[in-house]
Amino acid sequence: MTKNTKVNAAILIIGNEILSGRTKDTNTSTLAIWLNSIGVRVEEVRVVPDDEKKIIDSLNLFRSSFDYVFTSGGIGPTHDDITAQSVSKAFGINYEIHKEAYKILESYYKPGEFNEGRQKMVWMPKKANLILNPTSGAPGFNVENVFCLPGVPSILKSMLGGLTNTIVGGEPILSLTISLRTVESEIANSLSKVQKNNKDVEIGSYPFFQAGKLGVSIVIRSEDQSKIDNCNSQILKFVNEKKIEVVDR
Amino acid sequence: MTKNTKVNAAILIIGNEILSGRTKDTNTSTLAIWLNSIGVRVEEVRVVPDDEKKIIDSLNLFRSSFDYVFTSGGIGPTHDDITAQSVSKAFGINYEIHKEAYKILESYYKPGEFNEGRQKMVWMPKKANLILNPTSGAPGFNVENVFCLPGVPSILKSMLGGLTNTIVGGEPILSLTISLRTVESEIANSLSKVQKNNKDVEIGSYPFFQAGKLGVSIVIRSEDQSKIDNCNSQILKFVNEKKIEVVDR
Repeated sequence: MTKNTKVNAAILIIGNEILSGRTKDTNTSTLAIWLNSIGVRVEEVRVVPDDEKKIIDSLNLFRSSFDYVFTSGGIGPTHDDITAQSVSKAFGINYEIHKEAYKILESYYKPGEFNEGRQKMVWMPKKANLILNPTSGAPGFNVENVFCLPGVPSILKSMLGGLTNTIVGGEPILSLTISLRTVESEIANSLSKVQKNNKDVEIGSYPFFQAGKLGVSIVIRSEDQSKIDNCNSQILKFVNEKKIEVVDR
Repeated sequence: MTKNTKVNAAILIIGNEILSGRTKDTNTSTLAIWLNSIGVRVEEVRVVPDDEKKIIDSLNLFRSSFDYVFTSGGIGPTHDDITAQSVSKAFGINYEIHKEAYKILESYYKPGEFNEGRQKMVWMPKKANLILNPTSGAPGFNVENVFCLPGVPSILKSMLGGLTNTIVGGEPILSLTISLRTVESEIANSLSKVQKNNKDVEIGSYPFFQAGKLGVSIVIRSEDQSKIDNCNSQILKFVNEKKIEVVDR
């Protein structure tokens, strides 16, 4: 892939704890913000349970439909961690002890502490590339365009730095937010006209409540700063005409 | 549907702001906890952009695969709110002014304030059932097994109470959490045995960090309290044997 092409990704969140509502997913946001910054647009997210068939089906669809696939969750030592074996099956690759990962964890733990439970974490698809984990030792892994990361948000976050040179994005996706002291229905028609005149720019409108007051944030997104600036002018024009206050957020 | 059957649901989160990472989705957790409490298990979540085709495709798959489908987002007054028209197309139902919704919003706003932008919010699939909105007037709607709610978390939350008697769930999904001062790899094998002996109970293991200390929460889920109690005893047995501390969380 070369620069200036559009590069996309999908995220597969694996884990019953998200579907039960017990845990709120924050990894999507972390991954999306990081991916946007390196020019990769997230186009779909799915949350599936710890169920091998559902993981494999989603993986196979995603890896053929998107440039990159990121998974979060299911790579720990317990019985409900089945991402590595599911990825192996999805690709039809042997699921086996990864020697490099074994060495990393063997030296990470004190002598005698690299027990059977921990050894499960070095079982991976054969010849997977490791994604190093500066927080807790156990690496993630990558096969072709699929990148498997842990579910614990702080650990996932700490592993992204090491991936930045591996992921080849397009132009970074830029955005500009204009926050207004108004309600959506006051600006809906004018904003709709700006969107019609700027079809290749993504314009979103999001109501907010802050310090007891209503407002609307308009978010303009594009790879092209001049297109964002152009939309910005057109929006500020009707904002001024309607005497709507622009606020900081 | 009668009680004692398993009832499931899928959630479709509609909105570019989740895919860009700008907004963290909390509606999945809100919906899942509420649905669990009335005996409905969430089995899949998808996040899709404000893109008609993607919304329609996901809706059509979900409504034929799950007992209930909940959507969040895209029912406001702006150009990027396209859920109602997408649902109409998915069902092949006319998209038109909903008289009851019109009356609600006409009396909600002061005279002269029910402008064109706001009137967009009463366009819905013909004969949709309304989901009343005690927070901000504009109702959600329901067609067959699809329930469309707004994206703003506080408004969505306020609308669930009115739905409780509409959704027919199975037995409520019960859960028990045991939090331990340990790491996953210390208990992985023992826990795996308990799962093998209790195949119809869902046992999850989730590491946590609290007050600078590592721990693991084991979550047992089932519709049957006696099965949960049984697993609980088996887990506490190995916890005692291993002299692992049980902690409050």
